[in-house]
Amino acid sequence: MQTKRIVILGAGFGGIAAARELDKLQTRLCGAEVVLLDQHNYHLFMPLLYQVGTGGIEPGNICFPLRSMINKGGTGPPVMFRECQVQGLDVERKTVFTNRVDLEYDYLVFALGSTTNFYGLPDIESHVMPLKTLKDGIALHNRILESFETALLEPDEQKRRELLTFAVVGGGATGVETACTTAIFVFKTLARDFPPLVPQARVALVEGADSLLRGMRPEMGRIALQKLKSRGVEVLLNCPVACTSPTGIQTRDGRSIPTRNIVWVAGVRPVALAETLPADKARDGRIIVDGQLEVAAVPGLYVIGDCAYRTQFGASIAYPPTAQIAIQEGRAVARNIAWSIMGRPQQPFSYDYRGELIYLGRNHAVGEIGNRVIDGAPAFWLYQTYYLNKLMGFKKKLSTLIDWAYDYFYRRNTAKLD
Amino acid sequence: MQTKRIVILGAGFGGIAAARELDKLQTRLCGAEVVLLDQHNYHLFMPLLYQVGTGGIEPGNICFPLRSMINKGGTGPPVMFRECQVQGLDVERKTVFTNRVDLEYDYLVFALGSTTNFYGLPDIESHVMPLKTLKDGIALHNRILESFETALLEPDEQKRRELLTFAVVGGGATGVETACTTAIFVFKTLARDFPPLVPQARVALVEGADSLLRGMRPEMGRIALQKLKSRGVEVLLNCPVACTSPTGIQTRDGRSIPTRNIVWVAGVRPVALAETLPADKARDGRIIVDGQLEVAAVPGLYVIGDCAYRTQFGASIAYPPTAQIAIQEGRAVARNIAWSIMGRPQQPFSYDYRGELIYLGRNHAVGEIGNRVIDGAPAFWLYQTYYLNKLMGFKKKLSTLIDWAYDYFYRRNTAKLD
Repeated sequence: MQTKRIVILGAGFGGIAAARELDKLQTRLCGAEVVLLDQHNYHLFMPLLYQVGTGGIEPGNICFPLRSMINKGGTGPPVMFRECQVQGLDVERKTVFTNRVDLEYDYLVFALGSTTNFYGLPDIESHVMPLKTLKDGIALHNRILESFETALLEPDEQKRRELLTFAVVGGGATGVETACTTAIFVFKTLARDFPPLVPQARVALVEGADSLLRGMRPEMGRIALQKLKSRGVEVLLNCPVACTSPTGIQTRDGRSIPTRNIVWVAGVRPVALAETLPADKARDGRIIVDGQLEVAAVPGLYVIGDCAYRTQFGASIAYPPTAQIAIQEGRAVARNIAWSIMGRPQQPFSYDYRGELIYLGRNHAVGEIGNRVIDGAPAFWLYQTYYLNKLMGFKKKLSTLIDWAYDYFYRRNTAKLD
Repeated sequence: MQTKRIVILGAGFGGIAAARELDKLQTRLCGAEVVLLDQHNYHLFMPLLYQVGTGGIEPGNICFPLRSMINKGGTGPPVMFRECQVQGLDVERKTVFTNRVDLEYDYLVFALGSTTNFYGLPDIESHVMPLKTLKDGIALHNRILESFETALLEPDEQKRRELLTFAVVGGGATGVETACTTAIFVFKTLARDFPPLVPQARVALVEGADSLLRGMRPEMGRIALQKLKSRGVEVLLNCPVACTSPTGIQTRDGRSIPTRNIVWVAGVRPVALAETLPADKARDGRIIVDGQLEVAAVPGLYVIGDCAYRTQFGASIAYPPTAQIAIQEGRAVARNIAWSIMGRPQQPFSYDYRGELIYLGRNHAVGEIGNRVIDGAPAFWLYQTYYLNKLMGFKKKLSTLIDWAYDYFYRRNTAKLD
């Protein structure tokens, strides 16, 4: 009998969870080989990326070397990692094409995640800063500092105001956290370094809908709104963006926001490669999978995380693109592949919602745990504890703890990151 | 009486020392304004840059925000910092031209330091990695990891060997420390992640002269040589480089070293702007200054650090380009400017040699303190203590301590830095 090969595309939350679960199930895989592919050699802990962008923590604290992460507790042959960029997929020939190697597979876990959604707005990519990769986080941090340095020596009043306005587009969790920490970075930390500029600085959060944190409990959006305002963020609701330019945002109702710093966290869409898959897609481009996360028309192809759109018993279930769903799907898919190899029936995936926690600055957060909304200092300490716990490796936890203690008692990092 | 303005170009060791000393002497400057210019908003702690390049410490630990560093203990108006790139200098009109602002001055401290010296070798810049900026350090770290990832999937034996050979050119302090830590990174840390590749990996240190650490006590060079060999570094002495290519080094005596990774730390030369100064230059391009570090023909122009070449009582004194000299010169120049403003005679600079410490890996270092050569574990612990102490800010010390403890007990950082 030939050895089977399981290939996992992408080492985000879903891919890593699948790889680790397969490692645990190794004795049940009948010797199957597991190969994890990613374009980076580290797993990026995305939920804290906004903190890198706003001087809260050092970039290294949210990057975990993949080779150290897989193979925890496994007894069989190791899960392999290969750093390469996935360029194409032939589901007929069961082959993955990458920039470094072509790989045949028996089972494929498609976990490549999402990219920033610009909603077809023209030229927007060249005007705005997304926040999806480590590079984006570093670029945001550098941009905020650079804007202050440039404004300090800029004689033109209008240009100076544009430089000192930071607009965050998108009122979801990332948008709220980014706007909040940008405000703290600008109005607290940088206020000490650039006292004459602070009266001219603005931080705005621009959201097309009429509330923040849509998809979560309305109470949470109201708490976030209030807290953001008290931190000095101008929250512009009902304000869909019509277009952007190098010097500002135009909204659909004719308002304009003059700014040279637009952070675009208004939504995500599946990676381009998802479009090429011969599978049914939902309206938002996600790949439709069945209850056990397999593509119905292509046996052996599983899709998890931000790319997956589930239907079950005829009903469609569109989950938000969050880490906790990807992780649970990753584990489920690993078990299903093991059951399939062993010839046992696969299990339908069911999502166990654990709650939400949104950071709102020093001593504040808002969240939902066990059907209850929590906020204020308890939520803040829960946030810090929870995420410290989630960071992998003792050293990263300790370094992050130091970074956070420094922010809490003193100030954020103002040295550029390149 | 018009307020005088002192402009300091460059926030390296010399520039920072001058700015801080001027801050201390503020009451004696008769209200003179002090402006520090640099292209980055942070001071880079260069002596530990090789550790960023070889996974020893996180980049943020050697970057100190300049605005937080100046103004310690001063009582008068603050020393100002402006982030800009110095583009030109008119010593007749006493004006500095930058990318953001033109600045007139009464006293100028030229402390722009040095760049990598390629000794006029053709095309070399495109084949080698220098190690002068934070970007260089990050690039070296990423390159080592990238080479292993590429080699893992490279079918061609020759190419694989080139990818896995790391050649450091230059047997000075930086070269020795870089070669040593590269060897530890490759043969200890990466050996666990890439077991099949390690037998093919090579680390070489290439030096044109017949000994290492020239300019220091010969005993130190011998100790370094022995230690490097025991760490697995191939040390090639009497091996001047004739030319480089994308796939290797050709030496003048006809040897060739096939490699795709050349770290070039063979020497420095003054920044390009130094050439344009209307002052006498030494043969190596450094600007000749008198005993009080002033350019004789241009009163009010002081040169310190890697750009300065001193003559005194007719004799020339060519100091090596080290941090300790730049710091002492920076302080001396600050005092001389203060005395000049007060109408008092300036003092000749005299260099107080404090010693050297060269890192040679876990439990080893070599150095000279008070005319005695020390090595082994005592030198290692002295090295760690000394440099932890030199890092600015409690947080950086603590983070670096954690990084070092992690390296010491466990392993170096293998997550790429971008």
